[in-house]
Amino acid sequence: MAKRNRKNTGLAPGSLVFTGKRKTEIPSVSLIQFNEEELHQLYQENSIPKGKEGEQLVSWYDLRGLHKTNLIEELGQRFKIHPLTMEDILDMAQRPKFEEYKQSLFVAVKALDFRSDTFELVTEQITFFANDRVVISFQENDEDSFANVRKRLLNDGSKIRSRKTDYLLYALIDAIVDEYYIILDQIEEMMDTMEEAILSDTERDTKSKIHKLKLATLTIRRTILPLREAVSHFSRSEHYLIQQETRPFLRDLQDHTSQVMEALEGFRDMIQSLYDLFVSEINFKMNNVIQVLTIVTSIFIPLGFLTGLYGMNFEYMPELGWRYSYFVLWGVMLVISGSLLYYFKHKKWI
Amino acid sequence: MAKRNRKNTGLAPGSLVFTGKRKTEIPSVSLIQFNEEELHQLYQENSIPKGKEGEQLVSWYDLRGLHKTNLIEELGQRFKIHPLTMEDILDMAQRPKFEEYKQSLFVAVKALDFRSDTFELVTEQITFFANDRVVISFQENDEDSFANVRKRLLNDGSKIRSRKTDYLLYALIDAIVDEYYIILDQIEEMMDTMEEAILSDTERDTKSKIHKLKLATLTIRRTILPLREAVSHFSRSEHYLIQQETRPFLRDLQDHTSQVMEALEGFRDMIQSLYDLFVSEINFKMNNVIQVLTIVTSIFIPLGFLTGLYGMNFEYMPELGWRYSYFVLWGVMLVISGSLLYYFKHKKWI
Amino acid sequence: MAKRNRKNTGLAPGSLVFTGKRKTEIPSVSLIQFNEEELHQLYQENSIPKGKEGEQLVSWYDLRGLHKTNLIEELGQRFKIHPLTMEDILDMAQRPKFEEYKQSLFVAVKALDFRSDTFELVTEQITFFANDRVVISFQENDEDSFANVRKRLLNDGSKIRSRKTDYLLYALIDAIVDEYYIILDQIEEMMDTMEEAILSDTERDTKSKIHKLKLATLTIRRTILPLREAVSHFSRSEHYLIQQETRPFLRDLQDHTSQVMEALEGFRDMIQSLYDLFVSEINFKMNNVIQVLTIVTSIFIPLGFLTGLYGMNFEYMPELGWRYSYFVLWGVMLVISGSLLYYFKHKKWI
Amino acid sequence: MAKRNRKNTGLAPGSLVFTGKRKTEIPSVSLIQFNEEELHQLYQENSIPKGKEGEQLVSWYDLRGLHKTNLIEELGQRFKIHPLTMEDILDMAQRPKFEEYKQSLFVAVKALDFRSDTFELVTEQITFFANDRVVISFQENDEDSFANVRKRLLNDGSKIRSRKTDYLLYALIDAIVDEYYIILDQIEEMMDTMEEAILSDTERDTKSKIHKLKLATLTIRRTILPLREAVSHFSRSEHYLIQQETRPFLRDLQDHTSQVMEALEGFRDMIQSLYDLFVSEINFKMNNVIQVLTIVTSIFIPLGFLTGLYGMNFEYMPELGWRYSYFVLWGVMLVISGSLLYYFKHKKWI
Amino acid sequence: MAKRNRKNTGLAPGSLVFTGKRKTEIPSVSLIQFNEEELHQLYQENSIPKGKEGEQLVSWYDLRGLHKTNLIEELGQRFKIHPLTMEDILDMAQRPKFEEYKQSLFVAVKALDFRSDTFELVTEQITFFANDRVVISFQENDEDSFANVRKRLLNDGSKIRSRKTDYLLYALIDAIVDEYYIILDQIEEMMDTMEEAILSDTERDTKSKIHKLKLATLTIRRTILPLREAVSHFSRSEHYLIQQETRPFLRDLQDHTSQVMEALEGFRDMIQSLYDLFVSEINFKMNNVIQVLTIVTSIFIPLGFLTGLYGMNFEYMPELGWRYSYFVLWGVMLVISGSLLYYFKHKKWI
Repeated sequence: MAKRNRKNTGLAPGSLVFTGKRKTEIPSVSLIQFNEEELHQLYQENSIPKGKEGEQLVSWYDLRGLHKTNLIEELGQRFKIHPLTMEDILDMAQRPKFEEYKQSLFVAVKALDFRSDTFELVTEQITFFANDRVVISFQENDEDSFANVRKRLLNDGSKIRSRKTDYLLYALIDAIVDEYYIILDQIEEMMDTMEEAILSDTERDTKSKIHKLKLATLTIRRTILPLREAVSHFSRSEHYLIQQETRPFLRDLQDHTSQVMEALEGFRDMIQSLYDLFVSEINFKMNNVIQVLTIVTSIFIPLGFLTGLYGMNFEYMPELGWRYSYFVLWGVMLVISGSLLYYFKHKKWI
Repeated sequence: MAKRNRKNTGLAPGSLVFTGKRKTEIPSVSLIQFNEEELHQLYQENSIPKGKEGEQLVSWYDLRGLHKTNLIEELGQRFKIHPLTMEDILDMAQRPKFEEYKQSLFVAVKALDFRSDTFELVTEQITFFANDRVVISFQENDEDSFANVRKRLLNDGSKIRSRKTDYLLYALIDAIVDEYYIILDQIEEMMDTMEEAILSDTERDTKSKIHKLKLATLTIRRTILPLREAVSHFSRSEHYLIQQETRPFLRDLQDHTSQVMEALEGFRDMIQSLYDLFVSEINFKMNNVIQVLTIVTSIFIPLGFLTGLYGMNFEYMPELGWRYSYFVLWGVMLVISGSLLYYFKHKKWI
Repeated sequence: MAKRNRKNTGLAPGSLVFTGKRKTEIPSVSLIQFNEEELHQLYQENSIPKGKEGEQLVSWYDLRGLHKTNLIEELGQRFKIHPLTMEDILDMAQRPKFEEYKQSLFVAVKALDFRSDTFELVTEQITFFANDRVVISFQENDEDSFANVRKRLLNDGSKIRSRKTDYLLYALIDAIVDEYYIILDQIEEMMDTMEEAILSDTERDTKSKIHKLKLATLTIRRTILPLREAVSHFSRSEHYLIQQETRPFLRDLQDHTSQVMEALEGFRDMIQSLYDLFVSEINFKMNNVIQVLTIVTSIFIPLGFLTGLYGMNFEYMPELGWRYSYFVLWGVMLVISGSLLYYFKHKKWI
Repeated sequence: MAKRNRKNTGLAPGSLVFTGKRKTEIPSVSLIQFNEEELHQLYQENSIPKGKEGEQLVSWYDLRGLHKTNLIEELGQRFKIHPLTMEDILDMAQRPKFEEYKQSLFVAVKALDFRSDTFELVTEQITFFANDRVVISFQENDEDSFANVRKRLLNDGSKIRSRKTDYLLYALIDAIVDEYYIILDQIEEMMDTMEEAILSDTERDTKSKIHKLKLATLTIRRTILPLREAVSHFSRSEHYLIQQETRPFLRDLQDHTSQVMEALEGFRDMIQSLYDLFVSEINFKMNNVIQVLTIVTSIFIPLGFLTGLYGMNFEYMPELGWRYSYFVLWGVMLVISGSLLYYFKHKKWI
Repeated sequence: MAKRNRKNTGLAPGSLVFTGKRKTEIPSVSLIQFNEEELHQLYQENSIPKGKEGEQLVSWYDLRGLHKTNLIEELGQRFKIHPLTMEDILDMAQRPKFEEYKQSLFVAVKALDFRSDTFELVTEQITFFANDRVVISFQENDEDSFANVRKRLLNDGSKIRSRKTDYLLYALIDAIVDEYYIILDQIEEMMDTMEEAILSDTERDTKSKIHKLKLATLTIRRTILPLREAVSHFSRSEHYLIQQETRPFLRDLQDHTSQVMEALEGFRDMIQSLYDLFVSEINFKMNNVIQVLTIVTSIFIPLGFLTGLYGMNFEYMPELGWRYSYFVLWGVMLVISGSLLYYFKHKKWI
């Protein structure tokens, strides 16, 4: 499970400390500036590119690598980001949220990645700052959830080129929420596999895999619950940055998070059902095994008693001397085992 | 389980891509135009029929087959459908919803079909667009949930003929919700059968069938939850298209979805109770089997010990030479087994 | 379980079809007309009695038998009942509800009957129509939930005689809700019996009885949930028919339904606890049985090995010829079984 | 469990019938009249004491014994109590509630008593009527929850002496809620004992005790749920009787009931956890017992087979005549049992 | 579990009685007075230090040791604390709450401490009184949750020095909530360890440890639930003491408590999953053990029967005299055990 890593527990609120694991070597910033007519790209490592100014361009700063806080501080000063927001950007245990400031918006979300081999769920925090000219995305690792948005930006006729920062912000968050669906599909597939594994051949791993699946869904739940709240807040916001035309898209985004949440609620019950199925199956198998044990024991222990009886060394045992004793005994034993088999058949144990 | 099939994950919002499985060969459109006096029917494959215009007719376009998106695009242009709505029509993972636009309404619902042999639940998305003249229903497969509506339309005196598009829209949705009841009845019957199966003869399949029933109810739940919301939205809507006389019918529709939801809540507990019953039954059976094992073992193992004792070959064993040893031993063994049987009887194991 | 019986699934909304099982031979109507001074009774089969008119009398039509819809149609026309209400009266799967019309009120409730031998819960729908002069009660079966109301009506000084239709309506519904308490008491008694049955002697039926009790409570729940809503609606209604003096009684009625609901919530947990108790008990018993098995086996199998040892026919076995071997062996065996018994005693298995 | 005892089911609303079990021999009324300066006490059996009038005194009538309804009727007439309230006073199945009348307040609460030997929870209904001069408390049994209030009243300087009926009413209810804490502590202690009992030595009673604890908490829950509502209603009431200075105390009372409720919510989970612990423990023990059984059986049954082998009476068995057969066999048997013991050790069964 | 210790049950509301366990020897008060320029520290045992007056200083009285109530009374009189608040300070079973008085604020919170060796959770009540000049913190034990706040106060440039009492109050509560995270991390680690313990080697303690973890989370839950309410109340309060600039920090605090709550909700499911895992594992192991038992028994009991058969002493048993009987029997026994082994292999029991 992702650990909460409150390195700044006990620090003065407002200090800039990165609380996550370092995942990138060198921090980098890629800047895309665009409007309907033109598009400019810049990429710099270890410093913040200086874009064109004075023109009607939307700028998107995509920052990778948060462990060196000086870049964030520089961005913070250049775009007047609130100190508490700065702290939130660096606090990797920040829950998803949406906040309005007078001139700007702040959104924190979690990107998820499910490793289907180890059943581990990795969360990556991505935060966004937006004002009327600039959107900045902050994240530590270098994996790219935004490839599709970038591609669409390169396309001259795309809607994203003709809109403002609010639409870009929407498009970036939407790209992350879209990835949730992939994970839901992965988990659903896992659950189908689990079901088969339980019914065909109960292997040792199954139960710990179910447990891990449960933990994964709980983690997603903990992420999606505040995210839904944040998105709902976003879509209902009356902030001046959010244009009327973007609203239907925000409602759509809210729909998506609700859908993820509802799917998760279902997963919870399904995983419980898998547990129940597992216990039922084990109990069913155990019952069968014990039936075999009982049948074998019930038939052969009485027979064993009979053979023991005539193995005794008493001097006076009349049966021992009779001519057909042995064969009569065989008959008796066949009758006994036959009736027991019939009895067990009747009881449907065989 | 129905898979979510987000083929358009990562695409620009607004692109027209069909995300479901292709179920029809040739897309077709049937058009019914009617008012209280007259009724016209048209049917065309691969293109959209051109109905009469300029008259006070309600038109219902019933489109089957969504995989060729050109027909939808044509309809979209002709009736000015919003691009996001167009996308929703083609997104087979769309959750049920009700949306108001200035001049029109959009409703998405799911038709359900429960295959009682494989215990599989198949969902089919049906979407509706309505303005003051036209209702369009979109669906991929060719199964007809609307046969009854069609029949009533043919009947000259029917209420549906004297009303506007809002009532037609209601009647179509009501026809789909009515089919939910059939599935609820099917599931309820299944659960009764399950109960008997558990108690009479616990077969191997029972537990996986319970699991499948659970999955089915979870899927219906995921469908009905947003549907109820949509219907409630519909019935409370102040939209100009919805006439005062249609309201009681909408309230009725809302009642029906609530009833389905309440039934589902009960099913959830019932299925859990089936699991509990199953585990109880298996444990009960196992207890019985083990009692049989213990009784047989407890009686014959001591007797076997005794016969073993007098089967030893020691030279000096006084009992061996006694005249009535053998018969005395028989007596002892009868007493032992008799008392054990009495003991087990007393403990109610027999 | 009571089946939903939507015979009219797919029919045009508004058609009059009775959807339940026929339970009476001949439909009948009993009419009581009263005010503080006088009281008139009429009873007719197969037709609707014509009461006195033009006077300040409250009329209560008590209709039994809904399968012949012509009587309902006649009443509907005489008192101008809304077509959808007419349909609700005949739809036996109607959920409890309260509806206000301009001139009248409509209430649907369910009367319950618990058969304590088969653990079956039978529901009977009773619907009420009321305007300023008339209350009509509709039901299919002939069992009388209203005997007490009738008795009180005959009593000249009773409050019910001096009030209007709203109070009569209240009194009739209250009579039905009162019967819920009897069922709750029955179920509570059942649960007490169950508990004893589980602990004293786990019989085969217990688990299926628990399951049936669960189903019964779920059915009541499905009935009481919308009923509570309806009653709450009733007691908060601003309808002109409802007089100020009746309000405290309506609040009382609301109290009663809440109490039933709370009792049910408790029952749910209690039944779950009965399941847990059952499984605990079975496991406990099984543990005991297995302990007996293990003790018997652990003591006699080693002893049996020893006797087998000296039953071997090797020519050279020094012990066989020793004088006191047999008695020494007896001593050894007593020591072994003694120590094992002590060990098991110590482990509290005995 | 306390039975609901609706003797008046089916009676006309408003009739005075006592529905509980008779617990006192002779009904009695104790009257305390006080203000800041003076205090008068009166005690009468079978009739209502006549206190001083015309002075600024608060009167508290404490009535014990409800089965003779004439005293209640007399009080009802003297202080103009509403007929429905009168009925509520006598209905022992009344749920806790708070009601405002124009000139008076009515409160119903439940006093609880937990018998820790039989694990039974006894509920006693206590109802209060208050107007600007008089508080009347009604209860059937003779146990005194109000001893502390009485003591404080005797103390000249106490706050209760300087306040009005609203504060006295608060103090009496608070005294009852305070007793809930004692029961919560008792139950918590029981649960701790249970836990130890489960882990040290699973006795037969444990599971039925857990079940009884569960029933007890469910009963408290059913009592506290409406009580919390009533108290919240009380503390938010704008009734003219409730003075501004009493409000903080009412908020405090509300706090207490919330605390009891939260504790109960926790108890519910704890008891479930006790069940889980019990089943885990039983399963764990059973596993151990079966391991012992399997070890003993696996070692001695093969050895028994070997001794049986050489106990056969075939004429031609070469081993029987060999000189060291017997000792070689001992060696073989030691090796076999040694390796099995090592194997079980390795599997951590020993 | 922390016991509720209502020593004052039944006392007059308003009496000053300490209801907790005495944890400190000598009560002490440390006083810090500060503004942006200066900072003064005082420390006294058994009495309250007299700070500087008449200047614009914020004073923080940190009182340790509540069992001697005279200090609290003195503080109460000096700063005019409401009597009920005084009682709340001393009532160690007080639930977290936030209360506004005209001139002051009162906050009660719980500090938590988790002993990871005994799995015990210790709660310590800390209460705060604040007006425009003074913040007083009350606690019984001597452990210091405020070390960090103290350190930041010593730092001349820190934000806390330039703010008023509302910010100091916030900082103190935040310090306590921060410690919750440490406990959550501890519990999460415990749960990871538990999981491994269950899967690798089910030791006796595991189940009682899970139970203890559950109890711990339930206690935290009982603490955090009202705390969240209190903090939410705090952050939404319109009280004149709370300055506009402090609001973002309060929102942050509210965020933190929500996060703790969400984590706890997840823990609850995780612990349930641990129980399920444990039972699955035990059942799985038991199944394996019983399979071994059944295999050994099924193979050797029939063989034992055969050897017993030819150990009988009948005079006429043809096989006994045959030349190769013994070897043929060996062959038969090998075939039997071989086929059984193959059968069990096929059934995947081996």
